[in-house]
Amino acid sequence: MKLHTLEKPSLHVFDQLESEVRSYCRSFTTVFATAKNAKLWDKRGHEYIDFFAGAGALNYGHNNEAIKEKLVEYLLQDGVTHGLDMATTAKEHFLARFHDVILKPRGMTHKVMFPGPTGTNAVESALKIARKVTGRSSILCFTNAFHGMSLGSLAVTGNKFKRSGAGIDLGNAAFMPYDGYFGRSVDTTAYIEKMLDDPGSGIPLPAAVIVETVQGEGGLNTASRGWLQKIAALCKQRDILLIVDDIQMGCGRTGTFFSFDEAGIDPDIICLSKSIGGYGLPMALTLLKPEIDQWSPGEHNGTFRGNNLAFVAAAQALRYWENGELQAEVAVKSRTIRHALEQMVKRDGELGGEIRGRGLIQGIAFDEDGAAEQLCAIAFKKGLIMETSGPRSEVAKLMPPLTIEPAVLEQGLRLLAESLDELVKLRTEKRPFKFKGKGVG
Amino acid sequence: MKLHTLEKPSLHVFDQLESEVRSYCRSFTTVFATAKNAKLWDKRGHEYIDFFAGAGALNYGHNNEAIKEKLVEYLLQDGVTHGLDMATTAKEHFLARFHDVILKPRGMTHKVMFPGPTGTNAVESALKIARKVTGRSSILCFTNAFHGMSLGSLAVTGNKFKRSGAGIDLGNAAFMPYDGYFGRSVDTTAYIEKMLDDPGSGIPLPAAVIVETVQGEGGLNTASRGWLQKIAALCKQRDILLIVDDIQMGCGRTGTFFSFDEAGIDPDIICLSKSIGGYGLPMALTLLKPEIDQWSPGEHNGTFRGNNLAFVAAAQALRYWENGELQAEVAVKSRTIRHALEQMVKRDGELGGEIRGRGLIQGIAFDEDGAAEQLCAIAFKKGLIMETSGPRSEVAKLMPPLTIEPAVLEQGLRLLAESLDELVKLRTEKRPFKFKGKGVG
Amino acid sequence: MKLHTLEKPSLHVFDQLESEVRSYCRSFTTVFATAKNAKLWDKRGHEYIDFFAGAGALNYGHNNEAIKEKLVEYLLQDGVTHGLDMATTAKEHFLARFHDVILKPRGMTHKVMFPGPTGTNAVESALKIARKVTGRSSILCFTNAFHGMSLGSLAVTGNKFKRSGAGIDLGNAAFMPYDGYFGRSVDTTAYIEKMLDDPGSGIPLPAAVIVETVQGEGGLNTASRGWLQKIAALCKQRDILLIVDDIQMGCGRTGTFFSFDEAGIDPDIICLSKSIGGYGLPMALTLLKPEIDQWSPGEHNGTFRGNNLAFVAAAQALRYWENGELQAEVAVKSRTIRHALEQMVKRDGELGGEIRGRGLIQGIAFDEDGAAEQLCAIAFKKGLIMETSGPRSEVAKLMPPLTIEPAVLEQGLRLLAESLDELVKLRTEKRPFKFKGKGVG
Amino acid sequence: MKLHTLEKPSLHVFDQLESEVRSYCRSFTTVFATAKNAKLWDKRGHEYIDFFAGAGALNYGHNNEAIKEKLVEYLLQDGVTHGLDMATTAKEHFLARFHDVILKPRGMTHKVMFPGPTGTNAVESALKIARKVTGRSSILCFTNAFHGMSLGSLAVTGNKFKRSGAGIDLGNAAFMPYDGYFGRSVDTTAYIEKMLDDPGSGIPLPAAVIVETVQGEGGLNTASRGWLQKIAALCKQRDILLIVDDIQMGCGRTGTFFSFDEAGIDPDIICLSKSIGGYGLPMALTLLKPEIDQWSPGEHNGTFRGNNLAFVAAAQALRYWENGELQAEVAVKSRTIRHALEQMVKRDGELGGEIRGRGLIQGIAFDEDGAAEQLCAIAFKKGLIMETSGPRSEVAKLMPPLTIEPAVLEQGLRLLAESLDELVKLRTEKRPFKFKGKGVG
Repeated sequence: MKLHTLEKPSLHVFDQLESEVRSYCRSFTTVFATAKNAKLWDKRGHEYIDFFAGAGALNYGHNNEAIKEKLVEYLLQDGVTHGLDMATTAKEHFLARFHDVILKPRGMTHKVMFPGPTGTNAVESALKIARKVTGRSSILCFTNAFHGMSLGSLAVTGNKFKRSGAGIDLGNAAFMPYDGYFGRSVDTTAYIEKMLDDPGSGIPLPAAVIVETVQGEGGLNTASRGWLQKIAALCKQRDILLIVDDIQMGCGRTGTFFSFDEAGIDPDIICLSKSIGGYGLPMALTLLKPEIDQWSPGEHNGTFRGNNLAFVAAAQALRYWENGELQAEVAVKSRTIRHALEQMVKRDGELGGEIRGRGLIQGIAFDEDGAAEQLCAIAFKKGLIMETSGPRSEVAKLMPPLTIEPAVLEQGLRLLAESLDELVKLRTEKRPFKFKGKGVG
Repeated sequence: MKLHTLEKPSLHVFDQLESEVRSYCRSFTTVFATAKNAKLWDKRGHEYIDFFAGAGALNYGHNNEAIKEKLVEYLLQDGVTHGLDMATTAKEHFLARFHDVILKPRGMTHKVMFPGPTGTNAVESALKIARKVTGRSSILCFTNAFHGMSLGSLAVTGNKFKRSGAGIDLGNAAFMPYDGYFGRSVDTTAYIEKMLDDPGSGIPLPAAVIVETVQGEGGLNTASRGWLQKIAALCKQRDILLIVDDIQMGCGRTGTFFSFDEAGIDPDIICLSKSIGGYGLPMALTLLKPEIDQWSPGEHNGTFRGNNLAFVAAAQALRYWENGELQAEVAVKSRTIRHALEQMVKRDGELGGEIRGRGLIQGIAFDEDGAAEQLCAIAFKKGLIMETSGPRSEVAKLMPPLTIEPAVLEQGLRLLAESLDELVKLRTEKRPFKFKGKGVG
Repeated sequence: MKLHTLEKPSLHVFDQLESEVRSYCRSFTTVFATAKNAKLWDKRGHEYIDFFAGAGALNYGHNNEAIKEKLVEYLLQDGVTHGLDMATTAKEHFLARFHDVILKPRGMTHKVMFPGPTGTNAVESALKIARKVTGRSSILCFTNAFHGMSLGSLAVTGNKFKRSGAGIDLGNAAFMPYDGYFGRSVDTTAYIEKMLDDPGSGIPLPAAVIVETVQGEGGLNTASRGWLQKIAALCKQRDILLIVDDIQMGCGRTGTFFSFDEAGIDPDIICLSKSIGGYGLPMALTLLKPEIDQWSPGEHNGTFRGNNLAFVAAAQALRYWENGELQAEVAVKSRTIRHALEQMVKRDGELGGEIRGRGLIQGIAFDEDGAAEQLCAIAFKKGLIMETSGPRSEVAKLMPPLTIEPAVLEQGLRLLAESLDELVKLRTEKRPFKFKGKGVG
Repeated sequence: MKLHTLEKPSLHVFDQLESEVRSYCRSFTTVFATAKNAKLWDKRGHEYIDFFAGAGALNYGHNNEAIKEKLVEYLLQDGVTHGLDMATTAKEHFLARFHDVILKPRGMTHKVMFPGPTGTNAVESALKIARKVTGRSSILCFTNAFHGMSLGSLAVTGNKFKRSGAGIDLGNAAFMPYDGYFGRSVDTTAYIEKMLDDPGSGIPLPAAVIVETVQGEGGLNTASRGWLQKIAALCKQRDILLIVDDIQMGCGRTGTFFSFDEAGIDPDIICLSKSIGGYGLPMALTLLKPEIDQWSPGEHNGTFRGNNLAFVAAAQALRYWENGELQAEVAVKSRTIRHALEQMVKRDGELGGEIRGRGLIQGIAFDEDGAAEQLCAIAFKKGLIMETSGPRSEVAKLMPPLTIEPAVLEQGLRLLAESLDELVKLRTEKRPFKFKGKGVG
């Protein structure tokens, strides 16, 4: 890590000209200039390790060299950059690759929809087609779900602060307890089944269930394989469509390309975005079983659904999934992180804490208000970029690029451990400090 | 134009793998490979003149050389590509440039919000903040308006086909007649004022009025300067926020950077997207008067609101607005198009028709169902890419890049004239054919 | 009229114990004890002439002797009083009488629904069945409409004050200009047809149009026969159901049993309440064409839909419609009122004013805020009960019982003329006073 | 019981003229003519014992003699019958009596609102004022709740069949599990508290909780005193208003005037209707704590909120609550019923079954589909009127008038026992028959 040879870059331009809505730049108070894989450098050359990875959009790291090469080549040869939804060679190549590398090996026959290049576009299109196909209006969604910020997606997002931004009442959504919401001993699918099957429950038969396998924004709550299977089964039995929002958890974040690969479920609709573009470029997909692909042409559209630079990058990124190498790497790194977190939580008797998440999205849930935020702030000062998660920002979240170099991962974990020590010290000096034992309650 | 030396590219991959929702690739039935300014070439090298310009996202042409240079340079030096809403040098540069070139000369103090990189994100954020700031829920919008496909934007979009895609009832919007909706002799602002001021009208005081100065998707209906001023005044008098959706008409499409520059109105909120990214890259802005910028940090967010490649391209594209050259060029080309359309409409006594639009978005409204679509189909066969507009697809729309070379513009217009002749011939053979005289009715 | 021999009754009990929502008792500040036809007497015996008639529920006067006899007889013989929707002799008798006297002579085959004994129940049931039968959700309704206070009815009611009481957004209603809304020269059906037929208007094809022939609460606006016929035709052409809310205007208020009898239209659904019960007893009907009567048993219900006392009174009241006597009487009285109002408006050069309404619901629309309310207050002091109407309470409304004795009618009109003189005098002393010339604007 | 000396009355008139929505007349297939206390007689003089009591509107029996006397007297002296919300002597007397007999002894300071004379009107007004006072839109309601059929009330009603009648999406309601919904061992208030306090649950802070102490329509589910107290406490802690819908359970149905008297809770808003009118006449009250009585005059109104005959009857009926006699009687009868039901359930080893309810609303929940309906049908043939309850009509419900003569009660219970025997016999002959053991699941 370089020394602070220069003054910290000023945020003056942002403070003066940008809207108050800006957020991450308030936590990571410098001006970033360059980046490579799991590292960022600011204007003065100060180095940061990135345990945030573009909120999951940079699974293959910043400015992945192999992908960059393809992008520059495509640009230089004047490949079509902006193509709406016209057929282009870049799109054709991506479609064929996605079919060959992802769908075909899994026996999946899903059609590929390009819904506009952001996650919320994918979710909006998924909800639309589910409602169209079933003729029903309600969507069953989960406590602490996050699906996006446009009104359709926001209606199925649990976070009160985000929801209140709508300025209007958000309807046609029924929130049900996610796996583990009442503790591990309560099987929430029993609750859901009762509500769905009781004609007096007030809960209508929904068009679809929308679910994340791990709630990345909602506090790193993980759904068990069994719970997902039960949800899938209850959908099938009642002719409810199953939508997996794999925007953050897909593309390998939990270890496999689809986060539900291991659960053996077969969603009717799958939303992908974030890392699907390979290089952090805006792109999104909605995968639809052929029988659900009942769109009329142009019924859902958008200007930027043909971001061909993203198609070029995405096609190249799929090479990571041609064999099991990346998956094996992620498994190793995942254990490294788990081990380190366990050490941190166990090292001090006064320290409690709950480790959450799986794969390369893990974290520690703290009981004390503000602890996770304070930890991230300390870490940033040490050159580590991390964010919080959860309805009360109670989870300190680690989600480095899947491609992070093992040494950089270790270095980041060391910085985190130091930051935690510092936090404990700070808190101890003031008042007794407890890690959180359970859930969000 | 090259000869058809090869067979037409197959759309097999798209037909097999892509969702039924695909649309433009059904009209423009080839696979495009490369592009430059106002031209596209397909896989076999066949050339097309582009009078569609990425639905308005390519005002500066395909693969603009000066911008491309900056993009490649940025990529090669590993500038931050994906930055969420963290401060980066590329973003800082764009903000400063946007302030210096666009806002400051106009005396505008609007804050710049990056709402997610698509037009519908900009609209969603505009509606949210308008509702938050006013504490009201309803939005006054217009017949034949188009604002986007996510549920918030769709609720203020007039098109029945698009709306029905929602699958649920869309509310909190009051549709009012746009300028000229009942013919030029009826001032629709009088209607609107009566509905707003009558406490028995059933129409609530809205949070905001959202308006396009020209309805690009809705049929190239243009609002007069006087009408816009009245709308602005009635907003001000009643403490209603004025949102101009300048996503398609902004960035010079009508001749000035903001399409409302000549009307002398001062919108509270402005939505920009499409060409703001300079190179067809996903990007969007929501401009907010400082007193309206009442967001809490992170109240609206999105993963791809920091598409730094777009910031690089956008900053470079702003050079077009440092002086009046492009604006002057557009004025000339606009007259060229108007003249050519007038010739087409006038040339034949049996031909009627209504020329719509202004600047570099003009077209002919046909009375007969299917005529505009047939015209575009004929034109495509001749190597000209054009699209229709309007609730019945009744308008054949010309919107070339602002930077189109005059010779290419002329060539395109010739192809269009030939296509029209062919259409007239085809239609005459079958049955009498009339251009449309008035409106959408 | 008796002399004020006693002190005015105290409203202490009401002020202390009743909710702030009470309203008429604030205008008519005494405690009423007895009543007969068009007269009321308060506790001390002070007499009042009733030009309000229970807001239209007392078309046959207070305590109509012939009806009273039947009621007492029924009570004394222990006829079933409360019957839910069980079959009773009283209900059977009413049904047969309603069929024989009202439906059959008009060739109407409507089925009779008892939806709960208030107007808003009738409207709620009408909207429900219209939505069920058509599978559409939106209702086309009119500026200044009033249909009731429960959420379904309120959503199609124009009044801002009433609507805001909902506390939530009211949707699934499209407000269109009522006949004469933009002055008599503008045919608002043209506007409505354009909005309905333009696939870009944002206005969905509605399940039904709900309309009053005269807007009793909305300002005594009257729909012309031609306008009603056009509305009926546009409904028929588009497969939209036509609902006439005849709650206040039916049962002879405008001169014929149904207020639309003269217009020759054939509504799919008709709502009746108020005077249908004959004696001011709670009762309501929803009449449905047989093909629209697609209810499942019990799909809409309510405890008091079998108010058998009301059935007894209603059956007796139908005697008024066995011949043309009452209708002829109403025609005469209607002319008397019109003549008197014309005199009042014309007598003084400084007096302008617009006479509104027809049949036995007529009034004067004043331009000055508060004038109508002040007039009613003066009239009350003189022993005349009248109410205002209109979104700004700008209309002083006369709606005596249809059965009012001619002499009492004359007496009431004299009191009104005196009150108007007094008002003019009061206003002239302070500031110039103008009657309103036009509409609600 | 009289012999069947005449033919059963024909339902021809009803079949021909009344809407398909009619329901009870399909179960109780005769034409009723007269009634007294707990008995009804049809046209031919056939006698029926009434264990339905007007769905709870006839707590004081049919045509209660003491009340009838007052009604006839009032009618004969031409007391004001229909009074809108004008002050009348009858209303004054009722208000004073209600204060003296009901409110004052309990130390209640609630203001009395007359919202329109049906239960759904009371609920609509309660929801409106709760939303107005809190500025929040959502209402927390319960599985299997029933609150009425107009859209506001229907939105908080759980029954799927009733809800689907709305024809539009019903929103702004959050359904939570009622007491015992997951069995007696699960305290559902813990669930509710977690959902309310978790800022990520998707459940907004509601304006109010609306609750029935016993769910009369929803299956005779009873809330325990402790559960009600917890609900009241969680409301108070979070500044949520507590609405008790005591429309069916109030006026002594469960043993005390308010069904929550014993629970010691203090609801902010109470809805009363059904038996409040004393004689089965339409009437309803909304009781509001003074600080919640923030209505503007006339903000909620209705033509029939001044049903003065009902006020006369209601005032007289309050005599039952001047001392503890009726309450003591109800306690005795309640035990009689419980004992009889226990005998029925226990008598046969093969018989299981769950006794539900309390006070004079009790019943047996059957497991087999259709059993309760079949039981009621058999009972009707024997001259006993009973109805079912529950989302699957799985409960046979007993709710005689509170004033039922002990001998008539015994006679009714005998008829029920015989009917049950007959049912068991019928079912046994066909297939094994089980009473239901638990809940609605």
